[in-house]
Amino acid sequence: MRFAVLGTGIVGEGLATKLVSLGHEVKLGSRVESAAKAAAWAAQAGDRASHGSYTKAAAFGDIAINALQGAATLPVMADLKAELAGKLLIDVANPLDFSKGFPPTLFISNDRSLAEEIQKLLPQTRVVKALNTVHAPVMVNPALVPGDHDIFVSGNDAAAKARVVELLQSFGWKAPIDLGALSTARGTEQLLALWLRLYAALGTGMFNLRVVR
Amino acid sequence: MRFAVLGTGIVGEGLATKLVSLGHEVKLGSRVESAAKAAAWAAQAGDRASHGSYTKAAAFGDIAINALQGAATLPVMADLKAELAGKLLIDVANPLDFSKGFPPTLFISNDRSLAEEIQKLLPQTRVVKALNTVHAPVMVNPALVPGDHDIFVSGNDAAAKARVVELLQSFGWKAPIDLGALSTARGTEQLLALWLRLYAALGTGMFNLRVVR
Repeated sequence: MRFAVLGTGIVGEGLATKLVSLGHEVKLGSRVESAAKAAAWAAQAGDRASHGSYTKAAAFGDIAINALQGAATLPVMADLKAELAGKLLIDVANPLDFSKGFPPTLFISNDRSLAEEIQKLLPQTRVVKALNTVHAPVMVNPALVPGDHDIFVSGNDAAAKARVVELLQSFGWKAPIDLGALSTARGTEQLLALWLRLYAALGTGMFNLRVVR
Repeated sequence: MRFAVLGTGIVGEGLATKLVSLGHEVKLGSRVESAAKAAAWAAQAGDRASHGSYTKAAAFGDIAINALQGAATLPVMADLKAELAGKLLIDVANPLDFSKGFPPTLFISNDRSLAEEIQKLLPQTRVVKALNTVHAPVMVNPALVPGDHDIFVSGNDAAAKARVVELLQSFGWKAPIDLGALSTARGTEQLLALWLRLYAALGTGMFNLRVVR
């Protein structure tokens, strides 16, 4: 499977590296074609790894992953309407606003979500929200947090969600919880408000939540 | 210990009943002195149970609990400034706005919380946020959800939080997690956005979250 990973931060690089290790072809997308960080990643990540502009990456992938910072997401997505048409986009970003210090607030929340705003910009793309509720290393290696704990998916297209669940299972997530329509991403994005306080209180991001019933 | 429980819904009655069962004296406060629901509760809850107006209940209690609906909370609290001065107030409410259907949105969120708004109205009261992240029956009986799962406290006064932790332990909560200052209630209140989606996805409110690390 060919993946576009959009964003060269620790989330994007972590996902790209994991996908290559699972045998997928990955083009890591960056703002400018010549980005040194993306080039350095591709140079050491093996034959199945490459890099390019957001546009070239999006054109390359059968599945795209939005691993951009929240604040950068919507302008970039608006430019990729043609390249992402008919494809699956996994949105792992959070709409964090760091302009007023730490912990950040959310620049979209409550009766809206970043995932839904992306879906509005890309009506021909099937957007699925996932992985935004855990620290970057845990996204691709849930065993870093011991025992059972949960991950969520939100999306309007059942087949697209099933494909994402399968991908998450290949990362080690046993039984992702399907929350329902893409609007349920309002729940997982607002969870960041608690996640950030737990991060501060526990002194680590290496934790996750388990739904106990 | 004498408690004021403000609010006669399932949350208020559940807390009042539990407190009486633990040997505390409880005055259940309602909007009007003669409220039939509060009177019926007091009539069957034993010698340590009584009822009265919000004002009379607040004057009675050494510790008060805000178990009002979110939308009713701030106007009522503004009226109880004198009665609650120097006391501990445990806020278990959530700022839910049901005006646009289900799931509700939050009428205060992101860079504010209901708990902090209460604290602003009652500067001489020590406000602690707790229990707002679980279903009413689970608040006073955590064993209704099997295994280990967590509850949170937020507040600006360490001694007040310690007192609330002790109370929560008397309810059966083993190790409440202290998130820090009252502003961390922004995290637990916004958790409701996820809680409500889990409630819908799981078909029950009899669940809770465990912080796994």
